[in-house]
Amino acid sequence: MNARGHVLALSGGVGGAKLAAGLAAVLPPERLTIAVNTGDDFEHLGLTVCPDIDSVVYALAGLNDSVRGWGVADESWQMMAMLRRLGGEDWFNLGDRDLAMHLQRSEGLRRGETLSTVTARLAATLGIGAAVVPVSDDPVRTQVLTEAGWLDFQRYFVGEQCRPVARGFRFAGAERARIAPGLAAALARDDLAGIVLCPSNPYLSIDPMLAVPGLRDALLAAKCPRIAVSPLIGGQAVKGPLAKLIAEIAPKAGAGGGNALIANHYGALLTHLVIDRSDDADAGALRAGGLSVTVTATLMRENADRERLAREVLKAAGVE
Amino acid sequence: MNARGHVLALSGGVGGAKLAAGLAAVLPPERLTIAVNTGDDFEHLGLTVCPDIDSVVYALAGLNDSVRGWGVADESWQMMAMLRRLGGEDWFNLGDRDLAMHLQRSEGLRRGETLSTVTARLAATLGIGAAVVPVSDDPVRTQVLTEAGWLDFQRYFVGEQCRPVARGFRFAGAERARIAPGLAAALARDDLAGIVLCPSNPYLSIDPMLAVPGLRDALLAAKCPRIAVSPLIGGQAVKGPLAKLIAEIAPKAGAGGGNALIANHYGALLTHLVIDRSDDADAGALRAGGLSVTVTATLMRENADRERLAREVLKAAGVE
Repeated sequence: MNARGHVLALSGGVGGAKLAAGLAAVLPPERLTIAVNTGDDFEHLGLTVCPDIDSVVYALAGLNDSVRGWGVADESWQMMAMLRRLGGEDWFNLGDRDLAMHLQRSEGLRRGETLSTVTARLAATLGIGAAVVPVSDDPVRTQVLTEAGWLDFQRYFVGEQCRPVARGFRFAGAERARIAPGLAAALARDDLAGIVLCPSNPYLSIDPMLAVPGLRDALLAAKCPRIAVSPLIGGQAVKGPLAKLIAEIAPKAGAGGGNALIANHYGALLTHLVIDRSDDADAGALRAGGLSVTVTATLMRENADRERLAREVLKAAGVE
Repeated sequence: MNARGHVLALSGGVGGAKLAAGLAAVLPPERLTIAVNTGDDFEHLGLTVCPDIDSVVYALAGLNDSVRGWGVADESWQMMAMLRRLGGEDWFNLGDRDLAMHLQRSEGLRRGETLSTVTARLAATLGIGAAVVPVSDDPVRTQVLTEAGWLDFQRYFVGEQCRPVARGFRFAGAERARIAPGLAAALARDDLAGIVLCPSNPYLSIDPMLAVPGLRDALLAAKCPRIAVSPLIGGQAVKGPLAKLIAEIAPKAGAGGGNALIANHYGALLTHLVIDRSDDADAGALRAGGLSVTVTATLMRENADRERLAREVLKAAGVE
């Protein structure tokens, strides 16, 4: 136990990014590493788009659009309007401001920089002190099995708006992917004091990360608390297809509801689960299953909510 | 002589694009081929930017910004603002709407399409009927010799704002470049009735085209009038560094002024030169040199100006 040690957070996109930003607000930058899912990444119009990394970076830089819930604040869509006129692929919205990020990143990658290097540089330019690292510098691409076969994640998520029934997932490239240096360094720290699984979709945001060989074992080997914040509130996802996915692929929820499904899904990875007050009824079954449980308000509307939740998570981990 | 035959125009950027748009307005689309300079093209932020092709396409599509004088109307600069924040290269302005063009083109080129194919598709999507073709599908890149050595064209033109004294030009890649199929087809037409050198910079817009092996000879071999519209008005360029360049690299102007320098520069390529009323004094010396000369108003402020000048050029060529 190291009360003033390092914290490693694993995050997907929007919901996870909010807690990541909360952690960044309450911890000194040198005590925080945020490893981000790259399973949603894809190539589009010749650009490498990394939606979860960008959500985390924008949230930590205070540039996220809190009304729309994704992307950059004060965004405009002039490129898209012209692209439509030119007969281009317009199923994925790229904002004008957001484009600068994709252009800068894609140029760096084309020059031979790793995704870690590019991400660190862009984050630093925006004044972010904490380490933001992709789970891997090697491509990991989530695909969703539907009745129409395997769909690339963004085709399913944005193109099809998650309408097809999901029957399974795979993470193309994961078997050959290596843990990114910054994540490996965090895992190897003697002073690692807590691992936080941010409130992200377990199947679509955290599983692609866990599919990178060695990561699950390294997390299990860590001698520190491992705490997930449930992405469910009142049994529903705040955003995204989690509730629909649970209905499609998970076994019927029994005692402990959706939170028990999530706890079972993570299994031994978790020593602690933070759930929302509205799901208080789940707590008994979860505790009966041997898990330490914190019940609190997990909805993060304002910066103050993110910071309060971050403090509660750290407290549950015994980290100051 | 074929009064109802095909017209081939050679154009650079803004000024040339205006006359090209005038020709497109007064000729049926199947009677016009516009071959465009690619010497200004460059790779930037991983995109292939073709300023002259875009000027011609925007002008013909009625999308050009007539106030700023270049780029797309109703443009915005949100990507640039964010790029600056991300520490990106911000010396070359890429508008948000303009970006759609560069993204679409670059994606096509990366897929293996030729610049001709991409240009034809994008022009057609914007409703352009005339053939708009790059002078070559192979890269030709203008470079300017300055005291600091050779500068890539956009570094000289935009980065340095044409401040360095120019001592010469070269067109990297031109010696290996092949005439684009659409331009070769226009040159091979039995009904070729006129060749128009648009009011573009002879050194920076037309010379890179003439550097493509075989083009000069094919133009000289054409059995039709070859008419240039002078880019000078009152001995000055309407836009761009032409007058400064003439002072730097051309022999001292004598009788016939800057227009005589241009006529001498083009030499046997021209059978006819159209000059502005304000340079009426040049006409005598030009005619004494054996050139047929038309004196008229060449400044194109409105669409009506472009069309009137286009009609005068066609009339001088004996084309209806």
